[in-house]
Amino acid sequence: MFVLGIDPGLSRCGYGCVEARPEGPRAVAIGVLTTPPGDPLPQRLAELQAELRALLVELAPAVVAVERVFFQVNVRTAMSVGQASGLAMAEAVAAGCEVAQYTPNQVKEAVAGHGAADKEQVQTMVQTLLGLAAPPRPADAADAAALALCHLAHEPTRRAVARAAR
Amino acid sequence: MFVLGIDPGLSRCGYGCVEARPEGPRAVAIGVLTTPPGDPLPQRLAELQAELRALLVELAPAVVAVERVFFQVNVRTAMSVGQASGLAMAEAVAAGCEVAQYTPNQVKEAVAGHGAADKEQVQTMVQTLLGLAAPPRPADAADAAALALCHLAHEPTRRAVARAAR
Repeated sequence: MFVLGIDPGLSRCGYGCVEARPEGPRAVAIGVLTTPPGDPLPQRLAELQAELRALLVELAPAVVAVERVFFQVNVRTAMSVGQASGLAMAEAVAAGCEVAQYTPNQVKEAVAGHGAADKEQVQTMVQTLLGLAAPPRPADAADAAALALCHLAHEPTRRAVARAAR
Repeated sequence: MFVLGIDPGLSRCGYGCVEARPEGPRAVAIGVLTTPPGDPLPQRLAELQAELRALLVELAPAVVAVERVFFQVNVRTAMSVGQASGLAMAEAVAAGCEVAQYTPNQVKEAVAGHGAADKEQVQTMVQTLLGLAAPPRPADAADAAALALCHLAHEPTRRAVARAAR
């Protein structure tokens, strides 16, 4: 099963696709989608939407894990993260994927053991957990892979809850 | 030429389509798209995206005017307005429309003559300018129609600027 993590952003939208295997997770594709900062906002959004759609077709993940953002330094950033995350979630549902959302703290706890982990610790832990030769860069790509790993860490609990509910 | 105003929102996304005519603007369609507040966020976004796409196919506007939001009472609202506006702009570009953005103050100035106009004044002015039997309700629908009227008011200036630039 492929899980695709998305760290939503307009200038850099991180993605990290991880395969769940009995012997441990494997990195399938990690990178960033970018849109030219000089282009008009509507064109950038349409471009990001098309790139996200192409990525979903190419990787065909069962689950898409998206960062759930509550706080932002400023409203301008919140708007642009909101715009990118809205596109990611709508495209994921349209592609038939399950969508899960995790807060930055849940992600850090899942991959680094504590919610106060910094960007570098997250990058190092993603490298270790996926057995990569180098930590994924930029940070947005590592964050996206961490989201996918966070989903895998939460998966057994989710399944148990679903079983108990039946 | 049809101009479609969109007042982005997840629970209620206002739309107002206006036809530019020499004898004055005509209302083509005014209403709101809604998504069930009880549904999971990703499903609601996918639903809104599909409804926006259907609306763009049905009305085939040349221009889509979307509210540009700078300030929000809280980040949660900013995120959800951002998500809805991102979908609206991406779908509009994908449908081949020109996209224009106006701030709430620009819209109020254009339809009511001053940026401090309240919701009721905007509704009344939209009713008057479009010759409607009653003010459009809810406020989101009136705001969307006001966005389209705002674009028509700005259009001569935009054209003059474009001519001067050539």
